[in-house]
Amino acid sequence: MAEPAALIVPVILSGGAGTRLWPLSRLQRPKPLVAPAGGASLLEQTARRVAGRDAFAAPILVTGADDADAVAAQLDAAGCAPAAIIVEPCPRGTAAAIALAALRAGDDATLLVMPSDHAIADPAAFRAAVASAAPLAADGWLVTFGIAPDRPETGYGYIRRGEPIGEGAFRAARFTEKPPLAMARAWLESGGYDWNAGIFLLRAGVWLEALARHAPQVESACRAAWAKARGEARRIVPDADAFAGSPSVSADVAVMERAERVAVVPVEMGWSDLGSWEAVHAAGDKDEHGNLLAGDVVAPGSSGCLVRSDGPVVAALGVHDLVIVATERAVLVVPRGESQRVREAIDALLARRPPGGGAGG
Amino acid sequence: MAEPAALIVPVILSGGAGTRLWPLSRLQRPKPLVAPAGGASLLEQTARRVAGRDAFAAPILVTGADDADAVAAQLDAAGCAPAAIIVEPCPRGTAAAIALAALRAGDDATLLVMPSDHAIADPAAFRAAVASAAPLAADGWLVTFGIAPDRPETGYGYIRRGEPIGEGAFRAARFTEKPPLAMARAWLESGGYDWNAGIFLLRAGVWLEALARHAPQVESACRAAWAKARGEARRIVPDADAFAGSPSVSADVAVMERAERVAVVPVEMGWSDLGSWEAVHAAGDKDEHGNLLAGDVVAPGSSGCLVRSDGPVVAALGVHDLVIVATERAVLVVPRGESQRVREAIDALLARRPPGGGAGG
Repeated sequence: MAEPAALIVPVILSGGAGTRLWPLSRLQRPKPLVAPAGGASLLEQTARRVAGRDAFAAPILVTGADDADAVAAQLDAAGCAPAAIIVEPCPRGTAAAIALAALRAGDDATLLVMPSDHAIADPAAFRAAVASAAPLAADGWLVTFGIAPDRPETGYGYIRRGEPIGEGAFRAARFTEKPPLAMARAWLESGGYDWNAGIFLLRAGVWLEALARHAPQVESACRAAWAKARGEARRIVPDADAFAGSPSVSADVAVMERAERVAVVPVEMGWSDLGSWEAVHAAGDKDEHGNLLAGDVVAPGSSGCLVRSDGPVVAALGVHDLVIVATERAVLVVPRGESQRVREAIDALLARRPPGGGAGG
Repeated sequence: MAEPAALIVPVILSGGAGTRLWPLSRLQRPKPLVAPAGGASLLEQTARRVAGRDAFAAPILVTGADDADAVAAQLDAAGCAPAAIIVEPCPRGTAAAIALAALRAGDDATLLVMPSDHAIADPAAFRAAVASAAPLAADGWLVTFGIAPDRPETGYGYIRRGEPIGEGAFRAARFTEKPPLAMARAWLESGGYDWNAGIFLLRAGVWLEALARHAPQVESACRAAWAKARGEARRIVPDADAFAGSPSVSADVAVMERAERVAVVPVEMGWSDLGSWEAVHAAGDKDEHGNLLAGDVVAPGSSGCLVRSDGPVVAALGVHDLVIVATERAVLVVPRGESQRVREAIDALLARRPPGGGAGG
């Protein structure tokens, strides 16, 4: 195995817009920029995980045009100034986003690709896993980090571990996106499967080669967009027309599920994608009554609740296992465990409002 | 019995500040001025119950200095302009408030005294009861209207019916304020008891005579304050020093529990004091799922809830039997049936805030 030659380049992916943390996250303020459990934003937490460490260079940020200024400003303020800000003219999925970062970093760079809206309770464990995976990446493996399932989650991708390829690393034998519940249950029981957290360590050139082989339209569109990119200081905008020619596809679907040399490095690091209010509650610091409280809230006599406010004071009295989230413009109350119903709320609000009124988030 | 000689003068008592409907009612916006179930405010509903009817004169409003302008403006806007606005320099209870109105109206006037923060679902039944009670009042009886209990409420005053003194009227044999639960239950079962709704029909002179006999300090302080009152147009401010000399006492305690000729006229009129969010829910128009919704709210999959907002949009998803009330500054979530815990919320908020920060209502 070759030794890693240079600093690892963090690549922070801050794209997309979700509604699952409504009313806190909304189109006008995407999830990475908020702090669902209070404190630092998810973006800032992501950047700080590797900032100021000997092994890591300044990050490359890949983001959308709407959020670029806000995202960059937050990273600058957090002392994690990006070396480059790649502004996607339109969203084309993570395969293309990583390709743009790879083109910026150069073939020999080792990239640590991180979604910007996950929580990791134990960043030291994360960094240790990255360090242990670095020789594999240097050797040309596409490394993904695996999370041990603790429930039969059907919303994630699963990786079946193949043969060991070094200490704490396995060949990824198969990727399965969003398995049926029975399958997820069986895998939880049998073991040998990890969740795919969407965090990758890989050499830039290896990624571009893999794309060229397995998703050539993505690769060619990104190269064309990069060749005609406009730049100003650290901000780079790939050519919109060329980039629009890329299929919109995830890294998993475009490459990971198909490439030969894909490794999974399991890591216990308290990971959560914070993809729902339940996940935010599960990942956050709770009081002795199991309440996660954030903002100007009180919850006497309540238990098992997530209560947070970015606006009005909230008093939750003697209620149990509820999610209560308030902003200046909207309030959500839903049983914990049913927060996927947020979509119902948004639909109901849209249905009763005049066109253009928005969802009130 | 003498026939009533002139129009009945409505006396609207709009004093005091409650916290039981927090965060909707608060010191800065007292309960009469709000519409807990949406629509017209309680004050406006009170005034409209008798406005524009042949039997009734323009009302006399008795209110506090803080609220006088807002209360008067709301009545003017509702087309129920008061003939006089008596501004109490300090709160001294309903016995003194009625005395001030009696002094303004003159001994021969018949006063219909009404709290301004109750709901009456059937105003026609109310007016009919007033009409049937008018001869009694003209004859010198102090008439109170009785509400048939439908639960063993321990927060109200009870009146035991004595001998009949005409059609649908009884001598009030005994007043009991806030009985123990066992007693309230026994009375609910036995019958013969009515809740005291605090609505009175009485001759002004009779009230002042009764006060002189049973609460002479109230009577003398009010007469002294009235003699030195300052007035401007319809607005009258009794002398503060003199009025402050009155004991602070309710009409019930000062007179009704002691006077000889007190009558109770039972009336079925869908009365509620709206003294809690439960009462607001019980009194309001609910949808087929038992939800009382007011303001910019949606409640898919929810039942038995009171959901109202004066500010942010509120989405209550799949929750049951909750009270959810939102304003721009505060949000309350509490199980229906436990909204007396509102006091806990206010205490908790006051405890965690710097001095002067207020309760966020």
